[in-house]
Amino acid sequence: VTKLSGFPEFLPAGRAVEQHVLDHLRRVFELHGFANIETRAVETRETLLRKGEIDKEVYVVQRLHAAEGESTSGGAPAESEAHGGLALHYDLTVPFARYVLENSNDLAFPFRRWQIQRVWRGERPQQGRFREFTQADIDIVGRGSLPFHADVEVAEVMAEALAGLPIPALTLQVSNRKVLEGFARGLDIAEPTSVMPVVDKLDKLPRERVLTELQAVGLSESQADAIVDLAAISGGGAAVVERVRALGVHHPLLDEGLTELAAVVDGVHAADGVTVVADLRIARGLDYYTGTVFETRMAGYEQLGSICSGGRYDQLAADRRSTYPGVGISLGVSRLLVPLIADGLTASRSVPSVVLVSLVDEDARDDAADVARRLRARGISTEVAPKAEKFGKQIQHAEKRGIPFVWFPSDGSVKDIRSGEQTPADPDTWDPPPADLTPQIQEIHK
Amino acid sequence: VTKLSGFPEFLPAGRAVEQHVLDHLRRVFELHGFANIETRAVETRETLLRKGEIDKEVYVVQRLHAAEGESTSGGAPAESEAHGGLALHYDLTVPFARYVLENSNDLAFPFRRWQIQRVWRGERPQQGRFREFTQADIDIVGRGSLPFHADVEVAEVMAEALAGLPIPALTLQVSNRKVLEGFARGLDIAEPTSVMPVVDKLDKLPRERVLTELQAVGLSESQADAIVDLAAISGGGAAVVERVRALGVHHPLLDEGLTELAAVVDGVHAADGVTVVADLRIARGLDYYTGTVFETRMAGYEQLGSICSGGRYDQLAADRRSTYPGVGISLGVSRLLVPLIADGLTASRSVPSVVLVSLVDEDARDDAADVARRLRARGISTEVAPKAEKFGKQIQHAEKRGIPFVWFPSDGSVKDIRSGEQTPADPDTWDPPPADLTPQIQEIHK
Repeated sequence: VTKLSGFPEFLPAGRAVEQHVLDHLRRVFELHGFANIETRAVETRETLLRKGEIDKEVYVVQRLHAAEGESTSGGAPAESEAHGGLALHYDLTVPFARYVLENSNDLAFPFRRWQIQRVWRGERPQQGRFREFTQADIDIVGRGSLPFHADVEVAEVMAEALAGLPIPALTLQVSNRKVLEGFARGLDIAEPTSVMPVVDKLDKLPRERVLTELQAVGLSESQADAIVDLAAISGGGAAVVERVRALGVHHPLLDEGLTELAAVVDGVHAADGVTVVADLRIARGLDYYTGTVFETRMAGYEQLGSICSGGRYDQLAADRRSTYPGVGISLGVSRLLVPLIADGLTASRSVPSVVLVSLVDEDARDDAADVARRLRARGISTEVAPKAEKFGKQIQHAEKRGIPFVWFPSDGSVKDIRSGEQTPADPDTWDPPPADLTPQIQEIHK
Repeated sequence: VTKLSGFPEFLPAGRAVEQHVLDHLRRVFELHGFANIETRAVETRETLLRKGEIDKEVYVVQRLHAAEGESTSGGAPAESEAHGGLALHYDLTVPFARYVLENSNDLAFPFRRWQIQRVWRGERPQQGRFREFTQADIDIVGRGSLPFHADVEVAEVMAEALAGLPIPALTLQVSNRKVLEGFARGLDIAEPTSVMPVVDKLDKLPRERVLTELQAVGLSESQADAIVDLAAISGGGAAVVERVRALGVHHPLLDEGLTELAAVVDGVHAADGVTVVADLRIARGLDYYTGTVFETRMAGYEQLGSICSGGRYDQLAADRRSTYPGVGISLGVSRLLVPLIADGLTASRSVPSVVLVSLVDEDARDDAADVARRLRARGISTEVAPKAEKFGKQIQHAEKRGIPFVWFPSDGSVKDIRSGEQTPADPDTWDPPPADLTPQIQEIHK
């Protein structure tokens, strides 16, 4: 048995960390009134490849017999072979757009949803890149129009969700495509969209190289210099607006972008462990963003790239009657947790159990089960020893799993096996310390 | 946009029902100390096809370029093409067995786990059968040995979990392969295992037809009669044992099976809405069961077949050093919920929001956000109106989503839009009726 590279799995304590994180995300998303949906794991290849850009990475799905030639033997193609066949979704945005169109008559717009599911990409496995991974997305989608304030809202909700996680400090970087595009137009650059993918490389390439590439897409030396100067600006909303103005470029789209950018950066309330900054390097390679864009870096884990990204798209989806503008942000749960758990982020125990009820002999099982039932009735996770071994072995059973308490029904007492302290106890009234009620997350301190 | 047959998706209110069910299952499983794991969606075809029986149904997964011939163009096969390539898992038992072997050094045995994930089968879609569906499994696995009591435990935990669901009455049917096999041996039937798949058909075929089929696998007329008489027995543990004894067949394996059967049926505590019976028709077609077997029928939905099945397998997995006996039970969450939700099982609202905070104009947004923040701080799910429309439109916004309360920051009041009652309220102290705090599940009464 060998592990499959690119398909991470956690041991139970690691999964307890992931559950803790997913529970927290859900709680914050729901406190803000976002509805949950799940979409099927497969889309037609037609749907997935419409965006065109990551066709290399798609995992095609076929029934075994179809894969072995059944479908070419003359029969009519099965339903799943229509529309180019089926493939696993590679993100949650494309399926969400399809879901919105398919159910537009039954949804109330603006529709605010959270969605946490696995996605698949046939990439070469490498640091922070997986073939199967979990994403947590929130989006707000309107029909016809969507108020700008939705941009502030998704950033604020995600920042609040991230702030409660047991992870290193985060920087949520905000930019706005209108700033870069308006600035480029103000410089009389003919094709502003050709500038975005180059600016996006400023993280990885030296300034000189980026200047050369900008000139290669048709910019003059002074235009390229100005663009790189713009992209170097970061900080608070008002300060960034002032520094951009100081570059002396003017365009109505630039004004609009700066107003929106400042509104997002200043509109997101400070959350513990999450700093929100304007950062004009952030361009996002993807074509469909039309305004606000987000990326997120984690302190000490910069090599992971952005762990939480998104933005505004004026057309998430469209049908004959309407367009559906949206704004969303997507957290790479696996990208975040796999390295942290590998570095030691863990839970205080590998099982939910607070108490192990010991067993003197098989005849005592009913009494032990009764104690367990009474504890569970008060929300205390409890298991009964699988067999009547020596007490030493039963305590070892608890220790191995990190279960803090062993109950002795024979003399009506409970023992904290960490301290060794044993006290008389009644299963109808005894309570563990609140911190022991669920597994505690043990943060890493690098 | 057309829906894909066999790949069910819920609208938000349906998903709220599913979330409610999954939350309840998890709560019960965790109260009993079961640990959670998730496994990757794919296994090697080698692993999946080892059991041999459902190869027709497997969905093969390939990178797009591999599917289009990349892998045959002379390069070394990619990792994912080794071991027969990858396929989506069709249940949670095979992946669990692989996970146990892969992590046997890091798990504490007996290992008790719950696992709720989607699985995929390339079947022809039909009533109650899907190509993608969710299963909820609990299993207990030992290394070398596993006490019999684990059989009672999984049945009891699943019965308790099912009892709390907003669904029609259930009958958990228990049998034991040792009863059927021991009985057949007592009748001097040469190949007792050939009898199981035929007995399994008693639900679908008339008695005469089953008798004929039993004779076709080598039984005499009187042997076949006796087997069908045995399979007709059902009821409470002690009564069933007595009726089997009255058939006058003797074998040590039969005795062992009857003792185990009675222990499971009588050992599971009565749970509201779940009846536990011994039913000797239940044989389970699958080879790997070796003792206790389970099936579950839902009143009014008998055509779905068993919605929750499982049993004991003396060898869930094996490596060079050990065998891993297990017992488990698997709930077909989609099989259960898709028809119930189609029949009207729903939630009282399509969003988590208890309160919509209204907006007089854009300048009032900070005040509205402040009210929302104070309500959320006390666990009350709240959203702010997306824009400052007429109050009538804002109330309509709440009504469409089933949000029960609209808050008016301008005069510090809250309105129950169902009754129309409006009262002064302080966001630091106001509480909704407890029943309104989360969406209520509205059961169907057929």
